[in-house]
Amino acid sequence: MPYVEVKLLGRLSKEQKAQIAQGITEVLHRVANKSPEHTYVVIDEVERENWAQAGVLFSDR
Amino acid sequence: MPYVEVKLLGRLSKEQKAQIAQGITEVLHRVANKSPEHTYVVIDEVERENWAQAGVLFSDR
Amino acid sequence: MPYVEVKLLGRLSKEQKAQIAQGITEVLHRVANKSPEHTYVVIDEVERENWAQAGVLFSDR
Amino acid sequence: MPYVEVKLLGRLSKEQKAQIAQGITEVLHRVANKSPEHTYVVIDEVERENWAQAGVLFSDR
Amino acid sequence: MPYVEVKLLGRLSKEQKAQIAQGITEVLHRVANKSPEHTYVVIDEVERENWAQAGVLFSDR
Amino acid sequence: MPYVEVKLLGRLSKEQKAQIAQGITEVLHRVANKSPEHTYVVIDEVERENWAQAGVLFSDR
Repeated sequence: MPYVEVKLLGRLSKEQKAQIAQGITEVLHRVANKSPEHTYVVIDEVERENWAQAGVLFSDR
Repeated sequence: MPYVEVKLLGRLSKEQKAQIAQGITEVLHRVANKSPEHTYVVIDEVERENWAQAGVLFSDR
Repeated sequence: MPYVEVKLLGRLSKEQKAQIAQGITEVLHRVANKSPEHTYVVIDEVERENWAQAGVLFSDR
Repeated sequence: MPYVEVKLLGRLSKEQKAQIAQGITEVLHRVANKSPEHTYVVIDEVERENWAQAGVLFSDR
Repeated sequence: MPYVEVKLLGRLSKEQKAQIAQGITEVLHRVANKSPEHTYVVIDEVERENWAQAGVLFSDR
Repeated sequence: MPYVEVKLLGRLSKEQKAQIAQGITEVLHRVANKSPEHTYVVIDEVERENWAQAGVLFSDR
């Protein structure tokens, strides 16, 4: 019953989202025998202004 | 001090959000004696394009 | 396809966990017509030493 | 490799986000010697309609 | 700067964890050109008693 | 009503946890005028075997 959350900077196309979900689902099936039918992937696209590394927002880099 | 996060597909009306928050708060009070005053519920409405099952986005089903 | 995460302080009995999961699932079905079969509830029991309010750990209160 | 997620009600200015990220990064460096270069802070601004306390949405208070 | 959290039921071997992290990192690189060096994967192994589907704990199924 | 989750590798002393919670609470109060009384900090100590960068577990580095 894997539940996977992917947080990343900026926007993806719908096609990229579909490929990421498919790829991660395959990895969990191949490595840990997790049923694809019960694998969920959620993608969270975060604004550059809302994510910082080393105390600096990515929008300020 | 319960903190509850509800992720679901699509949009809810404000009335539905209010009833969900109230219902979950009551469950935690009744079952585990958690104080409503210290119970928080956050609702996260996820786009169908950002959630996949079995490697397929819900927007593609 | 709701996914619900409940974070709370301390431990629950297995019976309490079962009742919380059942109660939350019913609320989402009743209010928003979400299918119980596709509703997941995860419970995360947090140590009092790992949760703070107002800058003070609950283990220090 | 700290990863910090800050959820709060309403909107912040970009300047406030920058200061929060910087401040949290400094705290983790000073207290636990965590490398700023490997410290990430994500800020999630939640709508008042999507957060409840005591079963009441903040937009209804 | 992807940050991926994988929640799943039960335990994995260290070898499985390594392969899952590697596989997901490759998917994000291949599909969205995300730098492996900045891709983080966290695995959260949840007890069967703490996860429910359809209001029933997995430990009760 | 800020809710902050800090994920980090390895273990902290109780004293470090207290100082981190206090420091983050002060930052949110100073920068965004968030009430300490309504600021919550949760600390999640992740095993080195469960966190990877660049597809390699920290326990393998």
